[in-house]
Amino acid sequence: MSLNTFGHLFRVTTWGESHGPALGATVDGCPPGVPLGAEMIQHWLDRRKPGQSKYTTQRREADAVEILSGVYQGVTTGTPIQLMIRNTDQRSKDYGDIADKFRPGHADITYWQKYGIRDPRGGGRSSARETAARVAAGGVARQAIKALVPGCDVRGYMVQMGPHAIDRARFDAGEIARNPFWVPDAQAAADWATYLDGLRKSGSSVGAIVEVVARGLPAGLGAPVYGKLDTDLAAAMMSINAVKGVEIGEGMAAAMLRGEDNADEIAMGPDGPVYGSNHAGGILGGISTGQDVVVRFAVKPTSSILKPRKTITRAGEATEIVTRGRHDPCVGIRAVPVGEAMMACVILDHLLLDRAQTGGRRGRIG
Amino acid sequence: MSLNTFGHLFRVTTWGESHGPALGATVDGCPPGVPLGAEMIQHWLDRRKPGQSKYTTQRREADAVEILSGVYQGVTTGTPIQLMIRNTDQRSKDYGDIADKFRPGHADITYWQKYGIRDPRGGGRSSARETAARVAAGGVARQAIKALVPGCDVRGYMVQMGPHAIDRARFDAGEIARNPFWVPDAQAAADWATYLDGLRKSGSSVGAIVEVVARGLPAGLGAPVYGKLDTDLAAAMMSINAVKGVEIGEGMAAAMLRGEDNADEIAMGPDGPVYGSNHAGGILGGISTGQDVVVRFAVKPTSSILKPRKTITRAGEATEIVTRGRHDPCVGIRAVPVGEAMMACVILDHLLLDRAQTGGRRGRIG
Amino acid sequence: MSLNTFGHLFRVTTWGESHGPALGATVDGCPPGVPLGAEMIQHWLDRRKPGQSKYTTQRREADAVEILSGVYQGVTTGTPIQLMIRNTDQRSKDYGDIADKFRPGHADITYWQKYGIRDPRGGGRSSARETAARVAAGGVARQAIKALVPGCDVRGYMVQMGPHAIDRARFDAGEIARNPFWVPDAQAAADWATYLDGLRKSGSSVGAIVEVVARGLPAGLGAPVYGKLDTDLAAAMMSINAVKGVEIGEGMAAAMLRGEDNADEIAMGPDGPVYGSNHAGGILGGISTGQDVVVRFAVKPTSSILKPRKTITRAGEATEIVTRGRHDPCVGIRAVPVGEAMMACVILDHLLLDRAQTGGRRGRIG
Amino acid sequence: MSLNTFGHLFRVTTWGESHGPALGATVDGCPPGVPLGAEMIQHWLDRRKPGQSKYTTQRREADAVEILSGVYQGVTTGTPIQLMIRNTDQRSKDYGDIADKFRPGHADITYWQKYGIRDPRGGGRSSARETAARVAAGGVARQAIKALVPGCDVRGYMVQMGPHAIDRARFDAGEIARNPFWVPDAQAAADWATYLDGLRKSGSSVGAIVEVVARGLPAGLGAPVYGKLDTDLAAAMMSINAVKGVEIGEGMAAAMLRGEDNADEIAMGPDGPVYGSNHAGGILGGISTGQDVVVRFAVKPTSSILKPRKTITRAGEATEIVTRGRHDPCVGIRAVPVGEAMMACVILDHLLLDRAQTGGRRGRIG
Repeated sequence: MSLNTFGHLFRVTTWGESHGPALGATVDGCPPGVPLGAEMIQHWLDRRKPGQSKYTTQRREADAVEILSGVYQGVTTGTPIQLMIRNTDQRSKDYGDIADKFRPGHADITYWQKYGIRDPRGGGRSSARETAARVAAGGVARQAIKALVPGCDVRGYMVQMGPHAIDRARFDAGEIARNPFWVPDAQAAADWATYLDGLRKSGSSVGAIVEVVARGLPAGLGAPVYGKLDTDLAAAMMSINAVKGVEIGEGMAAAMLRGEDNADEIAMGPDGPVYGSNHAGGILGGISTGQDVVVRFAVKPTSSILKPRKTITRAGEATEIVTRGRHDPCVGIRAVPVGEAMMACVILDHLLLDRAQTGGRRGRIG
Repeated sequence: MSLNTFGHLFRVTTWGESHGPALGATVDGCPPGVPLGAEMIQHWLDRRKPGQSKYTTQRREADAVEILSGVYQGVTTGTPIQLMIRNTDQRSKDYGDIADKFRPGHADITYWQKYGIRDPRGGGRSSARETAARVAAGGVARQAIKALVPGCDVRGYMVQMGPHAIDRARFDAGEIARNPFWVPDAQAAADWATYLDGLRKSGSSVGAIVEVVARGLPAGLGAPVYGKLDTDLAAAMMSINAVKGVEIGEGMAAAMLRGEDNADEIAMGPDGPVYGSNHAGGILGGISTGQDVVVRFAVKPTSSILKPRKTITRAGEATEIVTRGRHDPCVGIRAVPVGEAMMACVILDHLLLDRAQTGGRRGRIG
Repeated sequence: MSLNTFGHLFRVTTWGESHGPALGATVDGCPPGVPLGAEMIQHWLDRRKPGQSKYTTQRREADAVEILSGVYQGVTTGTPIQLMIRNTDQRSKDYGDIADKFRPGHADITYWQKYGIRDPRGGGRSSARETAARVAAGGVARQAIKALVPGCDVRGYMVQMGPHAIDRARFDAGEIARNPFWVPDAQAAADWATYLDGLRKSGSSVGAIVEVVARGLPAGLGAPVYGKLDTDLAAAMMSINAVKGVEIGEGMAAAMLRGEDNADEIAMGPDGPVYGSNHAGGILGGISTGQDVVVRFAVKPTSSILKPRKTITRAGEATEIVTRGRHDPCVGIRAVPVGEAMMACVILDHLLLDRAQTGGRRGRIG
Repeated sequence: MSLNTFGHLFRVTTWGESHGPALGATVDGCPPGVPLGAEMIQHWLDRRKPGQSKYTTQRREADAVEILSGVYQGVTTGTPIQLMIRNTDQRSKDYGDIADKFRPGHADITYWQKYGIRDPRGGGRSSARETAARVAAGGVARQAIKALVPGCDVRGYMVQMGPHAIDRARFDAGEIARNPFWVPDAQAAADWATYLDGLRKSGSSVGAIVEVVARGLPAGLGAPVYGKLDTDLAAAMMSINAVKGVEIGEGMAAAMLRGEDNADEIAMGPDGPVYGSNHAGGILGGISTGQDVVVRFAVKPTSSILKPRKTITRAGEATEIVTRGRHDPCVGIRAVPVGEAMMACVILDHLLLDRAQTGGRRGRIG
């Protein structure tokens, strides 16, 4: 079942390999009449693009998106939108060694075991390049959300790199776009630059935690049991390469709380219920409360490092491998726009699902 | 959609409310010829059953499952299996107060806002009683897994209650069934009993972390992108009531690791690849490695507590609420068999998906 | 997947065997706030119920439906609706012979080949009793359609029995409920009674054609390519037991028409476009025009007849079989309410799908 | 619900408009290790290509397919296969008139009503050009079927054009490729040429019936209720542009048969059951019998004709329209390779579904 597809009604199928001629996303179910042009998608792709700072892979890709279908005279027609990105900088020679050796921490060995064949060039289908297609699809979702819920905003940023967490007391949203880490804390940005420089030079890599927040959502998105908003968010984030954990609101730390410290108290505001806190991350019983929806995910350190690691060949022989080539010392950086894109896709999907079942009617309070 | 359904090929649709006549699971896609009787499912339901110790709700439910279809002469026929559990101890009077007041931390308010109607008795559809249906479905999945992969075993246990984590050095699987907390650490079991007694008497509640491990799985289960094994596990666990975080392998802690500390080295064993460690939690690139698949999830503290909390009524008036009734001080305890059930369902689903696409063939190593 | 489920957003999963304890339908995705009581569903079930005339099987089933979930205080809550019908008249002894012999024209042999096990009693899962669950689900769909599109009406009737077609010049909708054949032609009703009496006494059976019409639908339901309204109607009708052909509008006869005779001319009426004819059956490009949606399907003759037929046993030995028991000489009669139910389910599903994608907005004409 | 997608496990999403830059199919779920090259797909596309005889549209399209992903070193990798066909001969000026007038019998009016926007050039998404993408996907399916069930063969042909049916006594499969109508009857080919010449010159068009047969399938494909093989075939064929009726085996004519004339008798052959006839069209209870699977569908006459037809403009004004441009006088001709492609996709899908649930095991006879 559409194992390369995500979404229920707003459905995104990504395709393509790292070193094939192109990759892209087939986007089905977008509402008609949404303003859409390649430049609106390109804006988001440029944020994920490699080679923008010394902290990300030096692969040179324009990541220029073409819209091949589903848009007419600048608006969506309601038919499938095909988004294609040509690969232009595929230096296959860089990857000769790994066709035969399995890189520890990579999907090389499992793809081989499952399929009995794989495109080893740049990781093939398991490459992080696949996430470019997600970001493109997220650009479509953002345009549609803007048309349906004008005030809604989706924003991601890094909150931790290796052992270094941000100081929430210094949180400054304006800072996010000003540094190469998408971090909302100027001091952290400076510290991380030094830290990552050292790591990069040593040929190592490190993990990170990304937080994505959606503001301005209506209450009522989601559904019981398997159609929970948080269920779909968890799946969306965990489906991103290298993600190993997903949290909503308090996340794993909820385990340490008492009931009276965790349950957000409710009061009546001028426009409906307001909450005294947001431990829930904006979701109760799988359905949005109208507060900020807050998701965090952990990205493991890139496994492509210059330190030698023990592994085996396809013939089963013991060997060592050093992964040269152009890799991100902290792949979590480029995961920020990817996480945003996934959030946008999930939210649009639930806006459509909700409209389908309830027609947008709401139980009245007050 | 099918927002009350989980699974791709092994599909479980749960139905029913806490205080309706019955609840259950419609299970479609089970392979034919699998030995199945009500008692095999009952075994697992009994582990989740309320009222078994002073640490879980005192509601008295037999949770007796009836198989209404899909089984003939003791084996599955390949047609839908209907599992029904009658509700027998529905004291609706306990819940009179909450029909009008929204309980903080509960789905009361979001269900009301979304649907404009809800069954307030015992939480209705959002009650943790829904998880009984999951456990029943998991019992079917376990039987089918046993038929397909005889050595595979799924086991869950608690690893943290509030601030108290187990000591992994004392890990003793044999201990799990010997205490009311499903905790693999005898010392922790003793400590937690004291701790939870105090909490219960004070009318409070606390969160927990549950770990579920699947052993004996073949390499090759899962698929790229949105059909990743970890994607489906994340969704499965996050869909359980009160879960706020999900981790695979190192989970959130992966953020703090360096590449050389995280990537599991590979060697050749007598039966195929063996790994020097399992930071990955048994999954690389969304596909199983053949190691233990390790998932953890955090359960928030029960929001039904005896401490008064500020809230509003349906009319929008400020008020306070104290949730009396029969509640679990640590709902994480009963989440253990639920997490196991979800793991079993996901694994069976991926066994079937893999068989569909690859026919079970594997790329050879060595 | 979900091979026992139909629908995209309004999803119906039927379960149960002819001679098991019960059968039913799990209905997910119904809008909240729809008035629903068992008696509203029973009304439609009673039309399909066996034993109502000498022309249908003499099996005695109350076909009494119970609503086990999803309804509170007389309205739907938006959660899954479980509809259960107990089997009460399972005379298994009638079917002893067929456990070993494969009945020609029946699913006995294919179920056996596919699953290696089957419940032979009354055909098990392949019994026409399964359609009771569809009719029950259709009753829910009708209530929801009434809430969403008050003027919409779904009605089915027979237009042919064996070689005897109705005379459309005598079409009288009022006649449909007055005869045991649901035929809108009083003369045909009289003729068919004589014809079917003869057939029944001779131990034979005959096929039929059923027409189902939905009136009062808005233009704009459906979608391109695989989400066409006619695609889903074709699937819905073909999924009914014994159906071998499905037609929309002119159907197979469209092959014999010229372009100028087939394309319905368009004029402007007071409330929008009006058409000079309805060769299209109310659907153009997979999307409803606002005219009557007209579907026909052919039901093959019951294969359970008193004439001896050559077959084989499970051991592969040649034999003969005579199917005694309680069978319909023209199973097409009871297919009328089933076809209506499937039409109602498809229409509701497309109302929800359309609302999801377009929000109900329409391109303006005039 | 993936309204531009078909298939359960072998999933094809088509995209693109008649006059956009390109169209194509995103194919997910193909087994790995299947030999595949563009030329294998091109072979089937060339059969559907326009402009090959005076009986089809004179639009000049190379219909050259590019494989953008999912294939490595000549075999499929199990990841999504993107098939792209560039549009090269888009003479938009031909279609200026129809941007404002709705063509009777076309999807112009319903697309407009549903979406409030449409690409009018060449019918946009509703153009028969969309079927090129299906044929391309069908080419992939054929390769995979060949790998899984070597003897299986799918072949389509015309059996009726307007009032002229073939004479089955003259059936000659070798004739199919020898005439521009894919008709297995040399005499009919000659007669139809004369007939269609006259029609074409008069500016009219005519309908047709296409039959598609799959030979060499195993028994056991399909599933009860909504996963029936015939349900999916009905949906697949009805989803093709201009199709108004679908039949399996006897089809609509089954209505006229008696039980003893319709039920195919069973005997034991050297390799399993053999049948005395094939009224069932190779499917019983939704599951294949191992006989030929026989599907027929009716294609309505092209609505683009030179005869003036009454219609309205978008402003609601009455007018007349004559559809000039490059159209097929009998679009049924080019529907032959499309029907074959849909059959191939459905069969592969059910081979995978069956392998998932049963592992290919079969109940033994004899």
